Amino acid sequence: MRVAFQGEIGAFSEEAVWALYGEVEVAPSPSMEAVFEAVEAGRVERGVVPIENSLFGSVHVNYDLLRAHAVQIVGELKLRIRHHLMAVPGATLGGVRRVHSHPQALGQCQTFLRRQLPHAEAVPAYDTAGAAKMVAAGGATDVAAIAPERAALEYGLDVLAADIESHHQNYTRFLALARDGGPLILAEAGTPLKTSIVFALRENVPGALFKSLAVFALRDLDLFKVESRPLVGSPDNYLFYLDFEGSIADEPVQRALDHLGEITAEMKVLGSYPQGRTVG
Amino acid sequence: MRVAFQGEIGAFSEEAVWALYGEVEVAPSPSMEAVFEAVEAGRVERGVVPIENSLFGSVHVNYDLLRAHAVQIVGELKLRIRHHLMAVPGATLGGVRRVHSHPQALGQCQTFLRRQLPHAEAVPAYDTAGAAKMVAAGGATDVAAIAPERAALEYGLDVLAADIESHHQNYTRFLALARDGGPLILAEAGTPLKTSIVFALRENVPGALFKSLAVFALRDLDLFKVESRPLVGSPDNYLFYLDFEGSIADEPVQRALDHLGEITAEMKVLGSYPQGRTVG
Repeated sequence: MRVAFQGEIGAFSEEAVWALYGEVEVAPSPSMEAVFEAVEAGRVERGVVPIENSLFGSVHVNYDLLRAHAVQIVGELKLRIRHHLMAVPGATLGGVRRVHSHPQALGQCQTFLRRQLPHAEAVPAYDTAGAAKMVAAGGATDVAAIAPERAALEYGLDVLAADIESHHQNYTRFLALARDGGPLILAEAGTPLKTSIVFALRENVPGALFKSLAVFALRDLDLFKVESRPLVGSPDNYLFYLDFEGSIADEPVQRALDHLGEITAEMKVLGSYPQGRTVG
Repeated sequence: MRVAFQGEIGAFSEEAVWALYGEVEVAPSPSMEAVFEAVEAGRVERGVVPIENSLFGSVHVNYDLLRAHAVQIVGELKLRIRHHLMAVPGATLGGVRRVHSHPQALGQCQTFLRRQLPHAEAVPAYDTAGAAKMVAAGGATDVAAIAPERAALEYGLDVLAADIESHHQNYTRFLALARDGGPLILAEAGTPLKTSIVFALRENVPGALFKSLAVFALRDLDLFKVESRPLVGSPDNYLFYLDFEGSIADEPVQRALDHLGEITAEMKVLGSYPQGRTVG
């Protein structure tokens, strides 16, 4: 099996691939769009992309790509974002003079850097795994990177300090994608399933959002996620993201979606898949 | 009037301050938390913070700060995120060899950079306005920054190319904050108002989310934003963000919130304020 993700080897998305699929062949990709295209074209069996983060919210660009591409969600995973300080073997924490990482990671480790390395220079980089790769290639013992643990393993770096992020409640939810129309992905018996949909309401239907949620409440289907997103250029219209209990193979779900179709201008079922675990 | 924002002079948040309040004294702050603290302590009259972006979603950290601090929302604004390439006077587009900016801005201008400056090196920086400041201080004509227009004015740079972002539907919504318990902010007569609340549902109330939206639907109060956010560490519990029509001074809104109180474990009214305009 070949699985695409966006970023460099050692990125958090690659951690998500391994947590979902174990030892598979990974295909690092330059952009999210490239991941969707590789899945759609059948060049890879799966793609893994971030869809929401507990600090930074939903990744709307990936919702847009889900709407535009013939792919389906077949799995999910929540990964705790843990940052580690790493450097070449022989380096010591006290000897670090420069720290490279993505500005978001540097920001999330500000307290650690201020206390432990007050004289080190923080240098912005494109991404965390890329910073680790560069530190390894450079070979200097006074330069470190902030990156995921996997990057240390990949590039032969030593972890000088682990879990240095200020906010430990930082989780990213990843989706696993497969080509649309492929074989139905079967979950192990007993695994609870969920379904994700995106829809836009028909104009001039008063209380339409309320009615759209009523189709699920009437059938006792629990909602896991509800999110509205204004359509830019059309401020009175919204897209809605909904995750709810059950699979599109279930009759109550089919009836709820039929019912929903009466008040929506657009609807896409993004996939039915096993409810994912939390890792890290 | 003194208004705090997070970032350097010339940042998008400062653009939002000027669009909201015109010529006021600005207080650049090192973090979002510092903005909230300055407002709460009365060191500034207003704070302006981003709350959601059309590509990247809600800024949950600012929702957390809204819950934790004694501040209220008194205004909002949607700002189009426009990126400009800028350099010292005398520089030309053809002569640019290095481009500094935040990785997100570099990514959003990738198509422009590939086509117009295929041989220039893209160098990550902490923030867009900081990159402009550095380019101005350096003085070299072969170095440019990608930053907001305001940064060019502030640091005396020439804009070599305007609106170079690939995605023109990139808007950030900013909130204006005032100290809680201050005088009620009155909108001009006829300005439509909206109210923002955050709440958590009581456990074991079946269909509680549906019921919580019913209290607004029953009173024909339109919803502008609905968003659920799982509480980390307590996966069956959610926080909900709701923006709806009207002000807490209106009787139907008061009755709706009374009604909502029956099924919520926690609720905070974040503020009632004039519905904001879109700028850019």
